Amino acid sequence: MTTRTNPLAGLAGRNFLTTDDLSDAELEALLELATRFKARGHKPLLAGKILGMIFFNPSLRTRASFEAGMFQLGGHAIDLSVGQGVWKLEHRDGTVMDGDAAEHLREAVPVLARYCDLLSVRCFPSGKDWSVERADPILSGFARYSTVPVINMESSLYHPCQALADLLTIRERLKTTKRKRFVLVWCRHPRALPTAVPNSAVLAASRAGMRISIAHPPGFELDPDVMARVRANAKKSGGSVEVAHDFESAFDGADVVYAKEWGSLAHYGDDAAEKALRAQHSGWIVGAKQMRRTAGGFLMHCLPVRRNVALADDALDGPWSAVVDEAENRLHVQKALLVALAGSAGRRPR
Amino acid sequence: MTTRTNPLAGLAGRNFLTTDDLSDAELEALLELATRFKARGHKPLLAGKILGMIFFNPSLRTRASFEAGMFQLGGHAIDLSVGQGVWKLEHRDGTVMDGDAAEHLREAVPVLARYCDLLSVRCFPSGKDWSVERADPILSGFARYSTVPVINMESSLYHPCQALADLLTIRERLKTTKRKRFVLVWCRHPRALPTAVPNSAVLAASRAGMRISIAHPPGFELDPDVMARVRANAKKSGGSVEVAHDFESAFDGADVVYAKEWGSLAHYGDDAAEKALRAQHSGWIVGAKQMRRTAGGFLMHCLPVRRNVALADDALDGPWSAVVDEAENRLHVQKALLVALAGSAGRRPR
Amino acid sequence: MTTRTNPLAGLAGRNFLTTDDLSDAELEALLELATRFKARGHKPLLAGKILGMIFFNPSLRTRASFEAGMFQLGGHAIDLSVGQGVWKLEHRDGTVMDGDAAEHLREAVPVLARYCDLLSVRCFPSGKDWSVERADPILSGFARYSTVPVINMESSLYHPCQALADLLTIRERLKTTKRKRFVLVWCRHPRALPTAVPNSAVLAASRAGMRISIAHPPGFELDPDVMARVRANAKKSGGSVEVAHDFESAFDGADVVYAKEWGSLAHYGDDAAEKALRAQHSGWIVGAKQMRRTAGGFLMHCLPVRRNVALADDALDGPWSAVVDEAENRLHVQKALLVALAGSAGRRPR
Repeated sequence: MTTRTNPLAGLAGRNFLTTDDLSDAELEALLELATRFKARGHKPLLAGKILGMIFFNPSLRTRASFEAGMFQLGGHAIDLSVGQGVWKLEHRDGTVMDGDAAEHLREAVPVLARYCDLLSVRCFPSGKDWSVERADPILSGFARYSTVPVINMESSLYHPCQALADLLTIRERLKTTKRKRFVLVWCRHPRALPTAVPNSAVLAASRAGMRISIAHPPGFELDPDVMARVRANAKKSGGSVEVAHDFESAFDGADVVYAKEWGSLAHYGDDAAEKALRAQHSGWIVGAKQMRRTAGGFLMHCLPVRRNVALADDALDGPWSAVVDEAENRLHVQKALLVALAGSAGRRPR
Repeated sequence: MTTRTNPLAGLAGRNFLTTDDLSDAELEALLELATRFKARGHKPLLAGKILGMIFFNPSLRTRASFEAGMFQLGGHAIDLSVGQGVWKLEHRDGTVMDGDAAEHLREAVPVLARYCDLLSVRCFPSGKDWSVERADPILSGFARYSTVPVINMESSLYHPCQALADLLTIRERLKTTKRKRFVLVWCRHPRALPTAVPNSAVLAASRAGMRISIAHPPGFELDPDVMARVRANAKKSGGSVEVAHDFESAFDGADVVYAKEWGSLAHYGDDAAEKALRAQHSGWIVGAKQMRRTAGGFLMHCLPVRRNVALADDALDGPWSAVVDEAENRLHVQKALLVALAGSAGRRPR
Repeated sequence: MTTRTNPLAGLAGRNFLTTDDLSDAELEALLELATRFKARGHKPLLAGKILGMIFFNPSLRTRASFEAGMFQLGGHAIDLSVGQGVWKLEHRDGTVMDGDAAEHLREAVPVLARYCDLLSVRCFPSGKDWSVERADPILSGFARYSTVPVINMESSLYHPCQALADLLTIRERLKTTKRKRFVLVWCRHPRALPTAVPNSAVLAASRAGMRISIAHPPGFELDPDVMARVRANAKKSGGSVEVAHDFESAFDGADVVYAKEWGSLAHYGDDAAEKALRAQHSGWIVGAKQMRRTAGGFLMHCLPVRRNVALADDALDGPWSAVVDEAENRLHVQKALLVALAGSAGRRPR
């Protein structure tokens, strides 16, 4: 009797905080499982299992896709929105809790882990001090205090479920990702949005051997530690990374355009300065004209997107748009992920 | 082997935006199926199916009855409340989205349609411009952008699920509806409530061959296009329609009293004028005294109801009250509707 | 074939508003069933059943544990948060409802009882007039108007589900409860918290034959009617009750320390006076030092808890802490309770 080891077996019981938590074999196996689920369906692999979703911030796709996925797998997702019918939560150690927060993660997380088989957390950065927030203290607290797997549904630094969906979408549209040109392009937006999505997008692309080009106005550099990981990944996977500051030429030869709005970390916490810098680049809006400069590339965006602010109608409504497929893939990759972390993926040889 | 065609088979995959979307045969078959579900239960006809409920406005009965119905049928309902843990949504085409709304229906709806098998929407009018809102732009947007059936859970113009429940309630209490006297009576209320419920109530009654009398103070006329449909329906079904302006005599000979509060479309968007007009008719409150003028008629109201404002305690607590039965019937008609739209009702001859 | 009567059979269809609703045999059988569920699992005893949870106030454990429990038993919990996507509810009879509340319990409750098999309610006191609120008008309204069992998820007076979890936790840690020293100790807090939890904790302990000591600063006496019941219960169960006002000595010889913050009923509705009184007792914070005075006792708290306000880090993080186990037990006792009230516990001899 021969069995091949299933790389997903090793994911059982682990956290999923960033795609770099996964080995190449695990990442590959996860995307294969998602592809299989999408094409052929699945058994109720999570029958009786409960996912506790803790939202510190709003959501549409994340909430709906996790809840749908758990149900389709025979399980159930509990939706807990902090500060909206749920007590506010403190995460700092040693605090005298005489403020808004009625409960500490040190109690809330272990308790939820007694009710649930998996926990997932969404916690955006608060826009005050990047040196504090880049450590992802809330997500880290969940990881530290939970006795069951913790899934990152978008933190200060990462949105790895989005990144998995991005990778699946890219694989579906390109025969191979090796040496294909992946362009992450900054877009305008009325607010300084977080960098979790661009971080995770380039981290994912850097695992796939792509030639990554990041185009943004000066002052919108991504976190240096993230960039260092991206460069290291690219080197290992046979890809490359470059940063450019010209909008129009960024699209030349692109196989994938990943449009994304984000705020300046250089002016993090200084809203006025950040806004002034952002306002200088109001021409960074992706339209059909830009898409026509690509090498027949397709257009990705994590959604939600502000039409005619970040992307023009003629970009979103053109034949190159993959944004709805990309959002659908959230469902499939998350189902594969949930099954793997719950230990229901690795029981038998594939 | 002979089979009768099941009229519900034709509903598979369709939207349900108003009762007038249904043919007479479809309406009849839907009410029969609801009656059967109520009396004899059902199999898990929606096993594995997901309903995405999108609420732009509050709800009690609608939320609870749809969620209960989906569960009882083996499916699941996802509750998404816009602006409450979910991004605000834009519906206007071509807008530069630099305001409150972070997402457009053009993305949100197709994405939700990838996660869900059915979508349902509640979107009240905003009270500004009836000429815009009577086109039901949000609901229409869902219908336009969705690839799965869309159910109206109350829009500017219609509340057709309420109308189905109303019809079932009437059929349960009257041997026949033909030529029975259906009185829709306006009631006082502190606010200018929408006209969706009165519209749908008379539209439903007009399908059932009833003698409809609409009693309201001058200035509270229903939308003329709706009234034209009501008259056309009544003519076809052998019923009739009259409008009266006297409160007390409205109840004479009534078989059904349908009490409802609504605001003046004549002063739509002009709150002060509307309020002043409404304030002149503070005597329009239904009590036991009024119910005793009916022909042993019963009392309907869609709920929620403000006691001792719109209806007196002695009306709501009297033996004629059908309001709780009417609310219960929301569950049964919606289950029949969900099964029909999902294509699970027409598979075999009945 | 012999059968012993199952005491839980008598709970079918009943309300659960306070632990004193249960006979000694019922209480014992419920805790035994919870123990069995926890140790050995259970069948889907509530397949197809729906619990409607109505929250007038926030929750974490309660919401998550009821929703998890219903799912694990094959049923479903619907989460309805009043004033948050759900109409505000009036409970007073005869009111002219021209204020905030759009709906009365007299309609809302019977309607929900048509959709759900069980209802549960959380309604904290509003801090204005204790003579009104101690009658628990909202919970009483649910009990009066519901045709299905009503469960108290914390009212002005009681939190009986917490009390059941407390009893299970105590039984798990003490071989016998008879004559064991149960110390309820008041703790400081920035706000005047309700007395439902301390009331239910001592009511539960008084059923178990424990030697109860209640330690609080003068002016923080619990409701006299509750205290009368506690004394009567203690007398019947072979226990005892004393009230003390010294913080440090309260811990001497304790087998169980039940730490809890609550406001002064003596100054109920007079926030300034209440706050001034509370501020005089800022030394009432439980730490490791206090726990070391006990007879190897363990530490209980219902959670949420404000660290370093009510309890110090070194109390919560010490080996004596039972707070997470206590919270987990909410799940198990509530599952037993739901099964009993739904009539699914008493069908066959155990």
